[in-house]
Amino acid sequence: MIFDPESFEPEHFRWSFEEGVATVTLNRPERKNPLTFESYAELRDTFRQLVYAPAVKALVVMGAGGNFSSGGDVHEIIGPLTGMDMPGLLAFTRMTGDLVKAMRACPQPIVAALDGVCVGAGAIVAMASDMRLATPATKTAFLFTRVGLAGCDMGACAILPRIIGQGRASELLFTGRVMTAEEGERWGFHNRLVEAGALLNDAQALARSLATGPTFAHGITKTQLNTEWAVSLETAIEMEAQAQAICMATNDFRRAFEAFAAKRTPEFKGD
Amino acid sequence: MIFDPESFEPEHFRWSFEEGVATVTLNRPERKNPLTFESYAELRDTFRQLVYAPAVKALVVMGAGGNFSSGGDVHEIIGPLTGMDMPGLLAFTRMTGDLVKAMRACPQPIVAALDGVCVGAGAIVAMASDMRLATPATKTAFLFTRVGLAGCDMGACAILPRIIGQGRASELLFTGRVMTAEEGERWGFHNRLVEAGALLNDAQALARSLATGPTFAHGITKTQLNTEWAVSLETAIEMEAQAQAICMATNDFRRAFEAFAAKRTPEFKGD
Amino acid sequence: MIFDPESFEPEHFRWSFEEGVATVTLNRPERKNPLTFESYAELRDTFRQLVYAPAVKALVVMGAGGNFSSGGDVHEIIGPLTGMDMPGLLAFTRMTGDLVKAMRACPQPIVAALDGVCVGAGAIVAMASDMRLATPATKTAFLFTRVGLAGCDMGACAILPRIIGQGRASELLFTGRVMTAEEGERWGFHNRLVEAGALLNDAQALARSLATGPTFAHGITKTQLNTEWAVSLETAIEMEAQAQAICMATNDFRRAFEAFAAKRTPEFKGD
Repeated sequence: MIFDPESFEPEHFRWSFEEGVATVTLNRPERKNPLTFESYAELRDTFRQLVYAPAVKALVVMGAGGNFSSGGDVHEIIGPLTGMDMPGLLAFTRMTGDLVKAMRACPQPIVAALDGVCVGAGAIVAMASDMRLATPATKTAFLFTRVGLAGCDMGACAILPRIIGQGRASELLFTGRVMTAEEGERWGFHNRLVEAGALLNDAQALARSLATGPTFAHGITKTQLNTEWAVSLETAIEMEAQAQAICMATNDFRRAFEAFAAKRTPEFKGD
Repeated sequence: MIFDPESFEPEHFRWSFEEGVATVTLNRPERKNPLTFESYAELRDTFRQLVYAPAVKALVVMGAGGNFSSGGDVHEIIGPLTGMDMPGLLAFTRMTGDLVKAMRACPQPIVAALDGVCVGAGAIVAMASDMRLATPATKTAFLFTRVGLAGCDMGACAILPRIIGQGRASELLFTGRVMTAEEGERWGFHNRLVEAGALLNDAQALARSLATGPTFAHGITKTQLNTEWAVSLETAIEMEAQAQAICMATNDFRRAFEAFAAKRTPEFKGD
Repeated sequence: MIFDPESFEPEHFRWSFEEGVATVTLNRPERKNPLTFESYAELRDTFRQLVYAPAVKALVVMGAGGNFSSGGDVHEIIGPLTGMDMPGLLAFTRMTGDLVKAMRACPQPIVAALDGVCVGAGAIVAMASDMRLATPATKTAFLFTRVGLAGCDMGACAILPRIIGQGRASELLFTGRVMTAEEGERWGFHNRLVEAGALLNDAQALARSLATGPTFAHGITKTQLNTEWAVSLETAIEMEAQAQAICMATNDFRRAFEAFAAKRTPEFKGD
């Protein structure tokens, strides 16, 4: 069954869809957009569906009301977890991990549009995205340690060091301190800082520029960024020889050459 | 047998212990704190003991007299090595590697407090720590190449690229040149530069802030930073689901929630 | 058979050799030094030969006429590829991947001297080098996406993230946008920016400083930077214990100690 981005109406976040770009908005601004058991599950299911949503070419993930997300809600998630048995706890941590797996496994590039509070599971969703735009007011914190937990949440000990380096990641994960927007840009977490008024527009423009590109090839790029994570150099190079040969058999590649030869702008269709 | 940090009196370095924080001081300032066969072995044994030292919650590693360490002593180490047979050489390189393994395997976060000369094996000890504070006068060099050796010493070809990137690490390891303190901060080797007069205080304050946190969870964070080094993304996420579920079964997590709910500051006990 | 760097006369690029340093110059300046099927193959074969070229101690790779390389030629490579069957495509992508494998597998450190246009396969050759000097005018772009291909070309999804971080690499590979020289230096792609007039001289001086060092040990450093890419920390440390023990059995190591003891400058011979 094909997921229909036009008619999709999620319960626990906002969804809009235009010109191939879907925008997911965490939408409980009075609480700074916390995640709940229900919104985790619905986000996970949605990203899983995106594998079967060829009309969706790229995504923007943002929060409503000047903040990205305050992470797992203290009363709706942390409280109940303190009373759970081990099978229940593992079911929860696997569900949250499955959200990151689903974000990485969908072929669409994901642009996170970050502002204000971006902490806990919110910081993880930002980290699991492919690119991140942020405002100067964005405060990102992997604050699991503040509630007595480890920094290893949903892949953070593997992914964050690859984005900002092992030393900086260690500090953020051990201390839970805020990474300022300026630090985030210097360290390579944020791809760019933009003013709050331009954030949504810039993030959607970036997503749209990808959506009008060779989207089949973008999906392969994303697959390779994931699957070459921990393979030898020799293996990675052979994997890319195969992956790129696949892309060379696409119509997008042929049409791009024809356009260049005719001094036209290439038009990509994702086939 | 439980290691007793109160009564521990090493022969080849200074040891102090206060409020859960142990401070290791390389202490031969007239020679800029070189390492010797004996100090290597004693450091290795000490870090190995820390696995069984629940009273020790975090560590600071520093050097006496305005320098961190000049590395393996030319006369006491390099000279004898030039006359050794292969089994002897391998026994030595395995012993030094075992120091790094022990620093990574102990559950306590290690804060290196760096100043002045930080070279050779000294640079490696800094690199193997979890976080690094340094003064503007800190000069770090992986100068193995200067004595005819390779840059691959005690894990440097694996660890340094993850901290500062493959290109910068390649330059430092091939050339042996000094990384200035300012470069170290820009590149993510140093977490922060502080004035020499504040170095010990700031490093111990950072260590103490970790020592008063959820230390069981910190140990899990460190374990995951090590063990997720070279596993697939999917594996890392499953590993973290399990590791974080363990932390959710701790009293520290429950107490932190209760404190938050009661608007109190959480108190962590490491259980 | 030993490759003779003095008499080598390649057909598709320039080769010069002086004081142990070979300089490879991509030399079709009127087209900004594109790669062709023939130049790919000859470069691959040359780097493969370097394993058997003990007289060559280090390399510089550069482009003629103010540009590094415009990458795979649109008419000579991209056009023909659009008409190839899958075995032909895979043979091509494996050949290009083999160039990167050969650049990584040769024991000599490679210094890329970058200026002007450095795009597509040109950016890959720069990335596959060990160190990179660039001028302020260098524009680097992994622009495969612009011709409908994926960013995973010749190892880029594995290697680029290790050099500049996963987030920045994702942006460059998904968008194909130019990384300015200043960004490249900030992000750790370029080791240093130098004026165009000093580029060749500085790159050759760096290569020469390596050529006069312990070149056997440099080869081991390069091997370890490659082979420790995706192994566990414990494995990496054991690998380095063995690799460094090998280097401790060299005459270069012994001579270096003797020189230090006698307060002379050590002389390295690569044995």
